[in-house]
Amino acid sequence: MSKEIITLAHGNGGLLTHRLIDEVFSRAFANPILDRKGDAAALELGGTATLFTTDSFVIRPLFFPGGDIGKLAVAGTVNDLCVAGAVPRFLSAAFIIEEGLGVEELQQVVASMRDTAARAGVSIVTGDTKVVEKGAADKLFINTTGVGTAYYPQAAMDTANIREGDAVLLSGSIGDHAVAVLAARGEYPLQLNTASDCACLNGLCELLLQEVPPGGIRVMRDPTRGGLATTLNEFVEGSGLGIDIDEHAIPVKQEVQAVCELTGFDPLYMANEGKLVLVCDNRYTQALLTVMRAHELGGEAACIGHVGGNSLQKLVLHTSIGGTRIVDMLAGDMLPRIC
Amino acid sequence: MSKEIITLAHGNGGLLTHRLIDEVFSRAFANPILDRKGDAAALELGGTATLFTTDSFVIRPLFFPGGDIGKLAVAGTVNDLCVAGAVPRFLSAAFIIEEGLGVEELQQVVASMRDTAARAGVSIVTGDTKVVEKGAADKLFINTTGVGTAYYPQAAMDTANIREGDAVLLSGSIGDHAVAVLAARGEYPLQLNTASDCACLNGLCELLLQEVPPGGIRVMRDPTRGGLATTLNEFVEGSGLGIDIDEHAIPVKQEVQAVCELTGFDPLYMANEGKLVLVCDNRYTQALLTVMRAHELGGEAACIGHVGGNSLQKLVLHTSIGGTRIVDMLAGDMLPRIC
Repeated sequence: MSKEIITLAHGNGGLLTHRLIDEVFSRAFANPILDRKGDAAALELGGTATLFTTDSFVIRPLFFPGGDIGKLAVAGTVNDLCVAGAVPRFLSAAFIIEEGLGVEELQQVVASMRDTAARAGVSIVTGDTKVVEKGAADKLFINTTGVGTAYYPQAAMDTANIREGDAVLLSGSIGDHAVAVLAARGEYPLQLNTASDCACLNGLCELLLQEVPPGGIRVMRDPTRGGLATTLNEFVEGSGLGIDIDEHAIPVKQEVQAVCELTGFDPLYMANEGKLVLVCDNRYTQALLTVMRAHELGGEAACIGHVGGNSLQKLVLHTSIGGTRIVDMLAGDMLPRIC
Repeated sequence: MSKEIITLAHGNGGLLTHRLIDEVFSRAFANPILDRKGDAAALELGGTATLFTTDSFVIRPLFFPGGDIGKLAVAGTVNDLCVAGAVPRFLSAAFIIEEGLGVEELQQVVASMRDTAARAGVSIVTGDTKVVEKGAADKLFINTTGVGTAYYPQAAMDTANIREGDAVLLSGSIGDHAVAVLAARGEYPLQLNTASDCACLNGLCELLLQEVPPGGIRVMRDPTRGGLATTLNEFVEGSGLGIDIDEHAIPVKQEVQAVCELTGFDPLYMANEGKLVLVCDNRYTQALLTVMRAHELGGEAACIGHVGGNSLQKLVLHTSIGGTRIVDMLAGDMLPRIC
């Protein structure tokens, strides 16, 4: 792909992002830790199993219903740690600021990071600040990188652990974050009440891990960029097993559904910033759903499908009107700069 | 400062950067680890003393004599770890790419990161990729965040350990990186041979730490953004002691001196990316200089001054022509986007 140029579709979390990562980054940097392709890397530091993950946030606009770039930057990295089975502990925060940004706006973002970190029980312990000329960035980009300690001594979760008959659980409605950001941009004449679901999932993840023995939860993810469809396709790819999901079981808010019908977006590909999807041994489905539903971030939790129901090694959606369709990774471009 | 707007001078590593960090970031995120203000944060992870640091790289142009943004991104974070007394182990790498960047250019940068990491003995274990629209970034920004294990069980280095009579050692000539970048920009009609000094200092740092008992080296830093003057002012601030340095002892390449005379820049404030400055118990001055001079990155190493020679609690330069002047932190703007 060396004659190609980078397009927005290389950044949407779908097929081209995966290709860019595989062919440019993973190939060059190859090592046993990186090659595991989790949301976080498992390090051994003097016998302590440590998880390590990074994310840059380039969302436009900086403030949106339900959150802002600061809340997102903390929650995003906290979530990448906790879905990988870690207790998030420490964050770094690096700011690239476009000349001309108001200090007051920056202070609001920083206050939001402080509050989100405090609620999640993580400390921001080191940082960096760069300023670039007007026009060389879009107001503010934030990178957060996180360190956590593994909840289990050995990292017990991996897509390779997924088995036939396992259940797929989802903690709540999809697409809320993407629709909230879309409305905040003012590009569509939309008067919407949908707020982003942006939230830290570590409290919920810990409760779920406490509920079942190690291995009972095969894998957890937060379906952000690329949406639920992309995450489930990663499960299919990692396990080599097909997954069947039921459209009517997947919670989608009425307003999100309406926006999707208007714009042609598919909620399955829309970004979420406070949702959890996991695959578990089906014996634990009810127990885990009970924990989720009792938690403020899981009130609408549902079992949305099962593993191994199709021999296509694909993600298959059973639609509300009784049809079936294969749901692939996101191929083209959908909605850039949503995280 | 909430009514102010961010200017380029807030990003040059000098006075305004320090004020922004103190008044906006440190105040909001305050915690005992962050408050120590080192180049890296000291974490306790299950009894293992771990150092953690982050840096974003926004250099223009991406390629320059002696290096590129990829080499810089690895070396910069490796250096922040090793001058803090850590053996660098793991890096994350997060890319913000402007739509339209050629994949080939990106591959060159990635190859350079791979080679630099391999030479330094660190692994790039996790990453992130974002793409923003044309005009929303300047080609490519890279964040690297690093994790290392403390060379000493307890972090033994701190500006607070600096004592009267201590020596200030510098590993080589200053200003090379800034001049190489300046020339690569083509803004001045300069035909220069100066290459950036961009290099990983961890090999040299380990040799120096092996040479003396814990505490013999009070503190080490790499004088990047803001230059040697800014780093030495941080030593003055952290120790509450004045430092005297001799202009004629500080190595400055002839070409760098010439560019500074032409442009009005001061080499003391110019960025370096492969230089080490340290304060040591004066008993170890000769031993440490011998180690530095035997290393490929320390051939021009020199003792450039001492602590406590003035009671002003300032950095005082004894000029080549026999005068003295107080050298403060960089106040205005000098050369943006050099790292």
